[in-house]
Amino acid sequence: MNNSFAQLLPPSWKTLIQRYLEEDVPSFDVGGFVVGDEEMEALLYCKEKSKSIVLAGVPFFDEVFAELGCSVSWRYKEGDELSVTETGGPEGKIVVAVITGPCRRLLLGERTALNIISRASGVATASRELSAIAKESHWHGEVAGTRKTTPGFRLIEKYALLVGGCSTHRMDLSSMVMLKDNHVWATGSITNAVVKARKACGFSSKIEVEARTLEEAKEACAAGCDVVMLDNYASAEALIDDAKILKQSYPKVMVEASGGITKSTISAYFSPFVDIVSSGSLTAGYSIVDFSLKIK
Amino acid sequence: MNNSFAQLLPPSWKTLIQRYLEEDVPSFDVGGFVVGDEEMEALLYCKEKSKSIVLAGVPFFDEVFAELGCSVSWRYKEGDELSVTETGGPEGKIVVAVITGPCRRLLLGERTALNIISRASGVATASRELSAIAKESHWHGEVAGTRKTTPGFRLIEKYALLVGGCSTHRMDLSSMVMLKDNHVWATGSITNAVVKARKACGFSSKIEVEARTLEEAKEACAAGCDVVMLDNYASAEALIDDAKILKQSYPKVMVEASGGITKSTISAYFSPFVDIVSSGSLTAGYSIVDFSLKIK
Amino acid sequence: MNNSFAQLLPPSWKTLIQRYLEEDVPSFDVGGFVVGDEEMEALLYCKEKSKSIVLAGVPFFDEVFAELGCSVSWRYKEGDELSVTETGGPEGKIVVAVITGPCRRLLLGERTALNIISRASGVATASRELSAIAKESHWHGEVAGTRKTTPGFRLIEKYALLVGGCSTHRMDLSSMVMLKDNHVWATGSITNAVVKARKACGFSSKIEVEARTLEEAKEACAAGCDVVMLDNYASAEALIDDAKILKQSYPKVMVEASGGITKSTISAYFSPFVDIVSSGSLTAGYSIVDFSLKIK
Amino acid sequence: MNNSFAQLLPPSWKTLIQRYLEEDVPSFDVGGFVVGDEEMEALLYCKEKSKSIVLAGVPFFDEVFAELGCSVSWRYKEGDELSVTETGGPEGKIVVAVITGPCRRLLLGERTALNIISRASGVATASRELSAIAKESHWHGEVAGTRKTTPGFRLIEKYALLVGGCSTHRMDLSSMVMLKDNHVWATGSITNAVVKARKACGFSSKIEVEARTLEEAKEACAAGCDVVMLDNYASAEALIDDAKILKQSYPKVMVEASGGITKSTISAYFSPFVDIVSSGSLTAGYSIVDFSLKIK
Amino acid sequence: MNNSFAQLLPPSWKTLIQRYLEEDVPSFDVGGFVVGDEEMEALLYCKEKSKSIVLAGVPFFDEVFAELGCSVSWRYKEGDELSVTETGGPEGKIVVAVITGPCRRLLLGERTALNIISRASGVATASRELSAIAKESHWHGEVAGTRKTTPGFRLIEKYALLVGGCSTHRMDLSSMVMLKDNHVWATGSITNAVVKARKACGFSSKIEVEARTLEEAKEACAAGCDVVMLDNYASAEALIDDAKILKQSYPKVMVEASGGITKSTISAYFSPFVDIVSSGSLTAGYSIVDFSLKIK
Amino acid sequence: MNNSFAQLLPPSWKTLIQRYLEEDVPSFDVGGFVVGDEEMEALLYCKEKSKSIVLAGVPFFDEVFAELGCSVSWRYKEGDELSVTETGGPEGKIVVAVITGPCRRLLLGERTALNIISRASGVATASRELSAIAKESHWHGEVAGTRKTTPGFRLIEKYALLVGGCSTHRMDLSSMVMLKDNHVWATGSITNAVVKARKACGFSSKIEVEARTLEEAKEACAAGCDVVMLDNYASAEALIDDAKILKQSYPKVMVEASGGITKSTISAYFSPFVDIVSSGSLTAGYSIVDFSLKIK
Repeated sequence: MNNSFAQLLPPSWKTLIQRYLEEDVPSFDVGGFVVGDEEMEALLYCKEKSKSIVLAGVPFFDEVFAELGCSVSWRYKEGDELSVTETGGPEGKIVVAVITGPCRRLLLGERTALNIISRASGVATASRELSAIAKESHWHGEVAGTRKTTPGFRLIEKYALLVGGCSTHRMDLSSMVMLKDNHVWATGSITNAVVKARKACGFSSKIEVEARTLEEAKEACAAGCDVVMLDNYASAEALIDDAKILKQSYPKVMVEASGGITKSTISAYFSPFVDIVSSGSLTAGYSIVDFSLKIK
Repeated sequence: MNNSFAQLLPPSWKTLIQRYLEEDVPSFDVGGFVVGDEEMEALLYCKEKSKSIVLAGVPFFDEVFAELGCSVSWRYKEGDELSVTETGGPEGKIVVAVITGPCRRLLLGERTALNIISRASGVATASRELSAIAKESHWHGEVAGTRKTTPGFRLIEKYALLVGGCSTHRMDLSSMVMLKDNHVWATGSITNAVVKARKACGFSSKIEVEARTLEEAKEACAAGCDVVMLDNYASAEALIDDAKILKQSYPKVMVEASGGITKSTISAYFSPFVDIVSSGSLTAGYSIVDFSLKIK
Repeated sequence: MNNSFAQLLPPSWKTLIQRYLEEDVPSFDVGGFVVGDEEMEALLYCKEKSKSIVLAGVPFFDEVFAELGCSVSWRYKEGDELSVTETGGPEGKIVVAVITGPCRRLLLGERTALNIISRASGVATASRELSAIAKESHWHGEVAGTRKTTPGFRLIEKYALLVGGCSTHRMDLSSMVMLKDNHVWATGSITNAVVKARKACGFSSKIEVEARTLEEAKEACAAGCDVVMLDNYASAEALIDDAKILKQSYPKVMVEASGGITKSTISAYFSPFVDIVSSGSLTAGYSIVDFSLKIK
Repeated sequence: MNNSFAQLLPPSWKTLIQRYLEEDVPSFDVGGFVVGDEEMEALLYCKEKSKSIVLAGVPFFDEVFAELGCSVSWRYKEGDELSVTETGGPEGKIVVAVITGPCRRLLLGERTALNIISRASGVATASRELSAIAKESHWHGEVAGTRKTTPGFRLIEKYALLVGGCSTHRMDLSSMVMLKDNHVWATGSITNAVVKARKACGFSSKIEVEARTLEEAKEACAAGCDVVMLDNYASAEALIDDAKILKQSYPKVMVEASGGITKSTISAYFSPFVDIVSSGSLTAGYSIVDFSLKIK
Repeated sequence: MNNSFAQLLPPSWKTLIQRYLEEDVPSFDVGGFVVGDEEMEALLYCKEKSKSIVLAGVPFFDEVFAELGCSVSWRYKEGDELSVTETGGPEGKIVVAVITGPCRRLLLGERTALNIISRASGVATASRELSAIAKESHWHGEVAGTRKTTPGFRLIEKYALLVGGCSTHRMDLSSMVMLKDNHVWATGSITNAVVKARKACGFSSKIEVEARTLEEAKEACAAGCDVVMLDNYASAEALIDDAKILKQSYPKVMVEASGGITKSTISAYFSPFVDIVSSGSLTAGYSIVDFSLKIK
Repeated sequence: MNNSFAQLLPPSWKTLIQRYLEEDVPSFDVGGFVVGDEEMEALLYCKEKSKSIVLAGVPFFDEVFAELGCSVSWRYKEGDELSVTETGGPEGKIVVAVITGPCRRLLLGERTALNIISRASGVATASRELSAIAKESHWHGEVAGTRKTTPGFRLIEKYALLVGGCSTHRMDLSSMVMLKDNHVWATGSITNAVVKARKACGFSSKIEVEARTLEEAKEACAAGCDVVMLDNYASAEALIDDAKILKQSYPKVMVEASGGITKSTISAYFSPFVDIVSSGSLTAGYSIVDFSLKIK
């Protein structure tokens, strides 16, 4: 059974890669003229010293070079943990892939490909850390990202969440409906908001309601929502207490915990009454993994 | 004399904003249907506690809402330092701007506008830190970014470098020619590479050469390059020693220091013989500034 | 409380209208040159004799003329039933709207605007017929469309379903996951397919499974699907029998009936155990409503 | 001599197919992730019972799958009449083509390809019916479509008219100039309108004038038009009478009959004095041919 | 009666202007940052000394500045002949228009606007010369351009032909069908080629056939073509002789003379038996009119 | 060492070719339907009698036919001088290349490919004339083009300058900063303008200042500009006198001579004190080289 997340990619995603390349090379490439089209090999190195680097972005990296007529041979695969200190390698770095093609084309793709893979791997690494904690806790739920992604780069950041073992949460405003305080105010009540939303989205989409109190959460469930977000609670304990009460009346409704949850506090939310814990920091302000490319 | 960096923006940059909005709302917006078109006001809050936040991204934030028929009134201006702890405000956050427009349109633009301004301000804040150190050192040169930017988001990251007081460095591969070891190998010598590059780029573009030794640097200068990058030297002292010798023979050539330079080490490079210090971390792995938007 | 489905439209939908206009006027418009830019009024007539015409497509019609600098004043509103025989009007047709603008621009938009509104109203009219039958039956569920839409025109057809009182069903392949026999075969079992799908889509998306027998349906429910489609059953009765059994074990799972359901057979499916009845004919092979535009 | 209408297609038409695919798969394809990339075969079935189905849309169907890296082998060819009842096949349906490729890619293209071929074949089938009646009447003229096409889908509908044996009529507003009452009013007379149009379109484009009386038609011919449309006449006889008189004075001018002409009334217009009979129903409100795709 | 050729322009032509601006300003505009947004006036000068300059390109020039938020006030109108030596003006140049707007925006549009108007006026001036000769000869026919236009700039060059008093000839390969020797060879005979073309284009498009002898021309006419091109004849006299014979048998067929016809030889072709004379030089290798823009 | 200027082309330039093809074939290609897909060969002829034709545009010509599935075999290479009178050939023309592919595709690409190569070769021929004069004068500097290019066609015209031995000068407004009188007026002084520009462009871009007197030129140099343009001087001698004085004080600053310089006057500017001579006529108002394509 084939498990590659690359199989999620729509036919149009290659256009994104073309735009990235065009952003980096809007007109002439004098460096390319200097080096010419001689066939060469380049090595992709990972230079990070951390033990827990997760490789992500392989199909995007591949496509950058495919656009340019080069090919990539990988020594690690998508989702692998790269351990620089253990496997060693010259200068404390490891060879992750070998790219073959005309010299100027290798250099044309270099910066765009590295900019992608260093960010995708950064997101996947941060995601793996959180999902690993969840796994160790034997928690049944999902650690999820948010829509706090870089404009123009969302597809790759959402994809990297999956590689790291987390959920994408809704892809965009057109996916799962999410009703917040603003929506409630504008319609008079949570019930009105949910009923009106269902009229437009129908059965095929889930509706999530952001609740700040148990009463709000209960009204949302009674109105027919599918997910309740308990947001910005004073403590994990308080949140779990409410989640437990909610689950007794509405066992099928999913409960999401959100609001300033970090790596150090997340495990407190791994309760049987909480189904999703989401964190914006997975795609916003994440660290970059240091990759480089050298022609042999 | 008007000094707004927004005046740098080309006619086409609004297309970028349209794409960002399309990425976030590919089809129906059920939340918008729920709230409708009633005219409302929303407040943009900055929630960071740090003293040194630099506001950046104003023209992009404005354009998101202009596309949606809303208008923005700012209480701070581009480049201002926001000091949450000092000015205070309810809940330890300050109101940065007021956005007015139909309720559903405020919510349509919310996430994209916040995703932009939180990243632009993050880059500007990091840039201001480094440029402030340079200023305090009374250094004559430029702290510059690199091409290590997020694909699809470069224009905004480069722009934010300027707001933070740093230089953009070359915008893309088609700007200033940069010759690295790969280019040299392919042509046989630094001299050959520079001559060949000049043939294609002519007088109107600068040529920078990456050198690892004083000999390489000298050959590059003799061949007619405009900038020499001294990369990955063992120490700032060693780099400055070479820069000094170089400047004696080639006083008009600019010298760039590069390679793993961080906030804690940068001041060691602020020599009269060094003209540019560049750092990839300004646009890669930077922290995000926490903004939020609330409808009144 | 504003209820317009136009509030569902994303910022980018106007691009669609621009493309439609470009399709109809790729280069010069000699007719426009002939008539010039004199300000004029045009009347939009509905010529259908049927009593149950539902007007749909108003925001798209408006946008065609907005793109061309004309304005539209409506005598009926989105979703209204137009009754030509009752209200009468000269030549057995009624005036639906008045468009004002430069003569050549009225003619530039005429055909595209009519092509849109005649199709949107066709879909809405067919949808209203089915949703009215459901309403008369006091059925709790949703009559829904499918993805059998005209390529390049889906947004408008899906929108018109809502105006007619039906559900859109999933907007595209990237919305709610739908697992059919092909997916099951490829993974070995319904359970495998559902588990693998959940791994990628997470909690924020529903999963629907197409089942041909009660056993398949039960396995799907046990595996965690949100909706079961009972497809191509021999009779409505047989389908409802299975739906009833299913609901006893899995009361929260929604049941969709599908497969060759027509206006004459649909009421047999309006059971308390069936939540959705879908019909491809609402957007494929629907009749067109005859509108025309005359300059006064 | 090769006669394929596919040879009419411009270099850019593949962009259209890419847009159709993007419309159906805007972001992730979870179903594709479930099934993976195993090579498989899928059968294209036609399920219609009617004897006179005309297959159309082959190059577009091919291109959908070519974009996805699959290949199609056809058992019938463009324009063939599919006779389900005669050739039989299991379950009263016939196999029209076999598509080979990775499983997820077959499913990615399925809906878009079917949506195209079912509509193209619908238009071609309706067109063949009318063109066959003309042929049986040994009529010299052309049965033609109109610009009443689905926005975003015109190229395929116009193409299918040709496969069905009809004429496309003008492709768009920029093709043959067509002057209607509105144009005449704005310029004061038919003569003025024709003269002004010729000034802009020159010799290379035809000019057609819509006439409601013989006098109008004569003025149009005298002014130099190439085609006269006799529109909405009370009867076919009245129209033919005028056409005959017109042809005596202007034998080179072509005469088009138009206005509410249906399959049951069309043969009355097949006169030696009428050169074109046009019908909007060929591309508006046409029936869909039922195709489906099953993976083996 | 309004006669502006600007009324021929399709809704989409403004996209062309946006692309031209983007070509000239792909990223930052440092000059714009230097001058800022102060409101200013700029004068458009024509510096040519020739008496017969024809102003063309006004709507495109206007649109460049409209895109940038500036407005243009013209002292001459589209198609006017500018006579620098007569009206005089400082430094032997005349003020053609005044543009008002923010300083940086005037400079942003300057080069693109001048590049357009200098070329459009060049084409119009060359066209006016030939059409004036035709007018003086009291010739009934059309002087026409060809498809020998600059890729990416055709719309403007075709438009300028009209301003200069010439015909556009077919706009593109999809307009009037043109059959040359290659088409004839591939189908076996002129008759075959014409019949096959008519099958695809129907009545709404003209068919032109290129003939090199009277026999070929006659076959083309007999086969039903609308226009015959007599190409590359040894002399104008020989061509007119054949045209005369042809017109006697086929009075309705139009005759086009083509092949190396220049300003000095064109009048020899102005025969009553020739309807069109075409010249590629009107849009290929034409002289540029010297305009400049100065801020006051 | 490979020297092809084609190696300068960015990944995205093929999109340009696709647009050119779309401009010429917006909808159906009836001629292509007439000839069909039989494999054929076509010859590219150059028909110019001049001795100094320079072939340019080979990669663009190749790409037109590559887009259409044809291949090109060249008998001359980019930059070669084609000498029709010497090598002779039938009918005084020479075969430059052989194109192979399906007949209709050869004809589809014919006009676009010829329109490109005839213009690119025109620019390269004009450029070679001037660069040859410079070479004969043993001048050290660069003859350069300007931004006076055809909108939508700049990439090819700039490229052809290089093939002809000239410099491109800045590619667009976003390349090298150029400060003219307008910029100076808006900031108060040349010094202010240069300082403000440097603030935005940083070290990586050159700054050129247009000066009309020696005093202006000196101020510009003192302010830190990289290039000074001496524009519209009364005579070459006067310009060289000032250039000489300038070089004594600022030996590293480059001096550009500009303003109405033609082939007959250019050699007067080839002084050791002048580094660049630029001429707008290289890309504006240039002659076209006559190529044609014939199917064998």
